[in-house]
Amino acid sequence: MQTAKLLLYCPDRPGILAEVTDFITVNKGNIIYLDQHVDHVENIFFMRIEWELDNFLVPQEKIEDYFATLYAQKYGMSFRLYFSDKKPRMAIFVSKMSHCLYDLLARYTAGEWNVDIPLIISNHSDLEHVARRFDIPFHYFPVRRETKEVQEQQEMALLAAKGINFIVLARYMQVVSEQFIAAYPNRIINIHHSFLPAFVGAKPYHAAFERGVKIIGATSHYVTTELDAGPIIEQDVARITHKDDVQDLVNKGKDLEKIVLSRAVRKHIERKVLVYKNKTVIFN
Amino acid sequence: MQTAKLLLYCPDRPGILAEVTDFITVNKGNIIYLDQHVDHVENIFFMRIEWELDNFLVPQEKIEDYFATLYAQKYGMSFRLYFSDKKPRMAIFVSKMSHCLYDLLARYTAGEWNVDIPLIISNHSDLEHVARRFDIPFHYFPVRRETKEVQEQQEMALLAAKGINFIVLARYMQVVSEQFIAAYPNRIINIHHSFLPAFVGAKPYHAAFERGVKIIGATSHYVTTELDAGPIIEQDVARITHKDDVQDLVNKGKDLEKIVLSRAVRKHIERKVLVYKNKTVIFN
Amino acid sequence: MQTAKLLLYCPDRPGILAEVTDFITVNKGNIIYLDQHVDHVENIFFMRIEWELDNFLVPQEKIEDYFATLYAQKYGMSFRLYFSDKKPRMAIFVSKMSHCLYDLLARYTAGEWNVDIPLIISNHSDLEHVARRFDIPFHYFPVRRETKEVQEQQEMALLAAKGINFIVLARYMQVVSEQFIAAYPNRIINIHHSFLPAFVGAKPYHAAFERGVKIIGATSHYVTTELDAGPIIEQDVARITHKDDVQDLVNKGKDLEKIVLSRAVRKHIERKVLVYKNKTVIFN
Amino acid sequence: MQTAKLLLYCPDRPGILAEVTDFITVNKGNIIYLDQHVDHVENIFFMRIEWELDNFLVPQEKIEDYFATLYAQKYGMSFRLYFSDKKPRMAIFVSKMSHCLYDLLARYTAGEWNVDIPLIISNHSDLEHVARRFDIPFHYFPVRRETKEVQEQQEMALLAAKGINFIVLARYMQVVSEQFIAAYPNRIINIHHSFLPAFVGAKPYHAAFERGVKIIGATSHYVTTELDAGPIIEQDVARITHKDDVQDLVNKGKDLEKIVLSRAVRKHIERKVLVYKNKTVIFN
Repeated sequence: MQTAKLLLYCPDRPGILAEVTDFITVNKGNIIYLDQHVDHVENIFFMRIEWELDNFLVPQEKIEDYFATLYAQKYGMSFRLYFSDKKPRMAIFVSKMSHCLYDLLARYTAGEWNVDIPLIISNHSDLEHVARRFDIPFHYFPVRRETKEVQEQQEMALLAAKGINFIVLARYMQVVSEQFIAAYPNRIINIHHSFLPAFVGAKPYHAAFERGVKIIGATSHYVTTELDAGPIIEQDVARITHKDDVQDLVNKGKDLEKIVLSRAVRKHIERKVLVYKNKTVIFN
Repeated sequence: MQTAKLLLYCPDRPGILAEVTDFITVNKGNIIYLDQHVDHVENIFFMRIEWELDNFLVPQEKIEDYFATLYAQKYGMSFRLYFSDKKPRMAIFVSKMSHCLYDLLARYTAGEWNVDIPLIISNHSDLEHVARRFDIPFHYFPVRRETKEVQEQQEMALLAAKGINFIVLARYMQVVSEQFIAAYPNRIINIHHSFLPAFVGAKPYHAAFERGVKIIGATSHYVTTELDAGPIIEQDVARITHKDDVQDLVNKGKDLEKIVLSRAVRKHIERKVLVYKNKTVIFN
Repeated sequence: MQTAKLLLYCPDRPGILAEVTDFITVNKGNIIYLDQHVDHVENIFFMRIEWELDNFLVPQEKIEDYFATLYAQKYGMSFRLYFSDKKPRMAIFVSKMSHCLYDLLARYTAGEWNVDIPLIISNHSDLEHVARRFDIPFHYFPVRRETKEVQEQQEMALLAAKGINFIVLARYMQVVSEQFIAAYPNRIINIHHSFLPAFVGAKPYHAAFERGVKIIGATSHYVTTELDAGPIIEQDVARITHKDDVQDLVNKGKDLEKIVLSRAVRKHIERKVLVYKNKTVIFN
Repeated sequence: MQTAKLLLYCPDRPGILAEVTDFITVNKGNIIYLDQHVDHVENIFFMRIEWELDNFLVPQEKIEDYFATLYAQKYGMSFRLYFSDKKPRMAIFVSKMSHCLYDLLARYTAGEWNVDIPLIISNHSDLEHVARRFDIPFHYFPVRRETKEVQEQQEMALLAAKGINFIVLARYMQVVSEQFIAAYPNRIINIHHSFLPAFVGAKPYHAAFERGVKIIGATSHYVTTELDAGPIIEQDVARITHKDDVQDLVNKGKDLEKIVLSRAVRKHIERKVLVYKNKTVIFN
C-alpha cells in the first residue's frame, strides 16, 4: 500500500494538530500513524504523520505544493514529505573493522530495511572481501593527508552519480571535511564507541579502562563539523567489571556498536528522526 | 494552574483526534499534553489529553456532560475525566516487609506525588512503627481464614469512609477476595516479585534460583481475580549470576520491587494508564 | 602461547584450591586465569584454571592422567581438560531465519572466535545462499515426520565424520530427538525467543504480546529432552511498549536473539561453562 | 558466626593464592568466601578471603601480626583485616534533597546492613525532620565561605568523637576540603548525578538535557581532591527520550541515584572494595 510520510516542526500554536489531521482526513487519507511532541522549553511543535494514498484526493505530485501553500507558510513550518515507493539510497563507509558492516549487510540482504545500498567506500582494502560476499560494489579511496581533498571530491562525485541520499560511517576511522558534511546535513550517521559526551575522540575504550568506569557505551549521531558533538540518535550501554581489560571492552563494545548503529539507521530509513538545534526527536 | 485530563478509547474512525482537539481548542483550552495510540489489531483508538482550564469556555462541572453528549455517544467512547484540584486518595496494604512501604512514604513525604495517603492497613503489626514515623494512621486487621470475610468487610467500610480511590499492595502477602477486587476494578496495584508470567504464585525467588535464570524481575500489575494475571503496568529486571543464592536474589529483588511499584503508582496517580482487555496503554 | 584449561567440580572440602594451584605452580606452570565458586547449598566446589604450558614439567599428553590419579580420585572430582591448540569444531543448524546465522558467521569470519565451522545443516534450503557467501558447506535434510529418524541418523553420521564437538541451533525450528540429544549432552546450544521460563514452546512473541508484558527476552540454553527446560547459559531483555505489535516484538527480539546466542557460544568456545544439576556456572 | 575478612594486593607472583589459603586451612579456618583477580597490565594480584574463626588456631588479636610477618612482608602486600563483630560506623552528610537519605535510613532501620549510623550532618536544616523520624542525631553546620574552615574542623572533631569510620555524601551539595578528604582516604562515598566522566560538576541534568543524550546515569565514587574524579564504585543508567524535560530527568535520576549510592555503600560495608591507582576492584 502506497503511503505518504510527513515530518514537520514549527512554533507551537493552538490548532495545528487538528488542522493537519483534518487536511488528511477530509481528503480521504487514512491515517495509519501519528506521533507528536511539544517542546515546551523552545515552544516548538513536532509531528510525524503517515497516511495511505489510495483514495487520497490530492494527487501525489501535488501534495507538497498544497501543503506548503495551505499550512507551512501559515504556521512557519519546516517540513519534509516522503513516499513509500521511493527507497532511500545509502552508502556505507568503512575502514578495517567488519562487525558493523556485516550487521548492516545482513539486515539489508535479509530484507529488514526498505533501502538500497549501491556502494561501499573505504580508505583501506581490507573489507573488500565482505563487499564481494554480498555482491555490493566496493570503492577503495586510499586517503592520505595530501590527497584527502581530491579523494573526497571523487567520493562526492561518485555518491552523486549513484544518487546517494545518506551515508553511514560504519567505524570509518577518518574525519570527513566540512565541505563533505555540508553536502549531507544530518544525513551522515556515525557510530562512536563511547557513551558520549564521555570519551570524545580517539581510543575511547582505552580512556574508559583508564578511568575505571563500570559501564561502557556506544553512541550513534549525525556528523557535524564539531567532532563527536552532533545530534545523538541512539545510545546503549553494557556493564563491565574490573576483570575486563581493554580487549574485553573492545569485544563487548563491538556488540553495542553494531546494534546501536543499526537502530539509528533503521530510524533514519523509516523517517522517524527530526533534528532541531543539535538534538533529535525520535518518533516511535 | 488548574487542568483537566481526559482519557478515552473507542473504535478507531477517521477524524476522532481532530474533533477532540478541536473541541478543546475552539473553547479556548490550552492543550499542554496529548498522546494517542491506535491498536491496529483490535482497531481501537486510545487518547490522553490535558489542557488548562483558565480560559476554557465550558464550566468545569459541565465538561463531562458536554463531552459525553457531543462525542462519547457519537463514537462509542469509554472515557474518564480528572481535574488537577482533586487529589486521588490512596491506601497502602502491607504485611511484614518494609522496603516498598518506605519507598512509597518517602516519596509521599517529599512531595513527589500529587496524592493523599490517609491510612495504612496490615494483617500484621510489624510495620506499625513505620507508619508512626510518617504520622499515618495504621490499621491492624489480623486476617485468618475463618475471619477473612468479616475483616475484609471492615476494611472496605474503612476504605469507603476515608474516600479511598485506589489501593497499593506493597508486598501484602494475602490474596484478596473477589468481592474486594470487584469494588476496586483496575484500582488495586500489586507488586509481584518475579518477571511475570514466569514464576506465578508463592516463592518466586526460590523458583528462579531453582531454574537457574540469569536475570530476575519484578512486575507491577492491577489485581484481577486470576492470581498474578492482571494487566501489567510496569516491569524491570536485574542481572544475577550463579554466585547469587536465594538471599542475594531477595536482596537484589527488593530494589527492583520498590522501584517498579513506585513507577506504577506514579503512572496511576498521573492518570497515565488505560486498561483494555487485560492489557495496559501507558501514556508517556 | 600454548595453554591448558582445567574445569572441575567436586564436593567442597578444605584445601582443594590450594592443592590444585600448588600442582600447577610447583610444576612451573604459569597460572593466567583462575576462577572458583562454592555452591553452599549443594556443597559443591567449582573451579576453572588456565596456565601456560611452556615450562610446565608434566608433558601435555600426561597431564590428564596425572591429574586424575593425584587429585580427581582423591576428591571425587568431575573434570575436563582442554588445550589451546585444539580448536573446537562447531556445526550450525538453521531453518529459514538468517539473523543468528549471519551473526555467527560474521564473528567466525572476522576471527573473533577460536573455532572451526565445517558445516551448516538445515531442514530448508532457504539459507543456502548465506552458507555460500561464507564458503561453508551446506547440507539440506528436508525433515518430515516419517523421515525424521532416518534423516537424523544421516545427520549424526555426517557430524561424526566431520569431527563435530558441539552444535548450535540458530533458530532451528525443529525438535531434535532424544537419541540425538543423548549423543551431545550439554553440547547442543539453542536460542529460545523468550525470557524463559516464561513462554515455553511455539510462538513466544505472540504469547508475550497477548499477555501484555513490558519487556521481552531471549534465552540461550543447552538442549535437554524436556522442551526449553535445559540449563540456561545466557539471557537478555529489551523494553517494549503498548505501541509495539507482534512484528515489532519479532524485530526487537531478533537483535536480542543473535547477541544472546553469540554470547553463549563464545562462553562455550572459551570453555567457561560448567553444568551441574540443570544449572550452569559461567566463569567470567 | 564470627568471621575474619582479609583484603590484600601485591605484585603478582606464583604461589600467593596457594600460600594464603594454606595459611587459613592448616590453622583450621573454614574458608566461606574467596575471590581473587590479577591485573595483568599492572601485574598486581588482588584477593578477598573470608573464614570462620570458631576453630581457627591463631587468636583473633594476633592474626594481623602473624599475617604481616609471615606473608605481607614477603610478598610486599598491602592488606586490611576486618572482623565481623566490629560494625563499621557511618556518618551521612545531606543538604536539601531527601531521596538518598530516606533510602539509606530505610535500609538501616530494616536491618539490611551491618552498620551503625550515629549521626547525620547537614549544611541546611531542611532534613532535620527526616533524622527525627528515624531517631538519629542531626547536626546542623551552616557552611558559608568564610566559616567553612572552622565548621569543617568542628565536623571532624564530632566525627572523631563518634568513632566514624566512613562518610556518605547523600546529595551533599558542598565541596569538602583537602584536609577533610585526607582524613578519610577512600572512605568518603559520593553520589554524582551523571554517568561520569560525562557531565562533571554542577547541574549535570541540565547539561544532559542540553546535549540531547538518550540515556542518563548516576555514579558513586570515593571522593578525592579532584572534583568528581575519584575511584568509581558503581554506576547505573536509565533511558530517556526527547519527551523528557529537565524535571523528568531529575525525577528519573533520583531513582538511579539512591539505588546506585546504596549499592556502593553496601559494597563498602561488606568490605568488598579495594582501591588501586584511582580504580576499584569490586569483589562479588
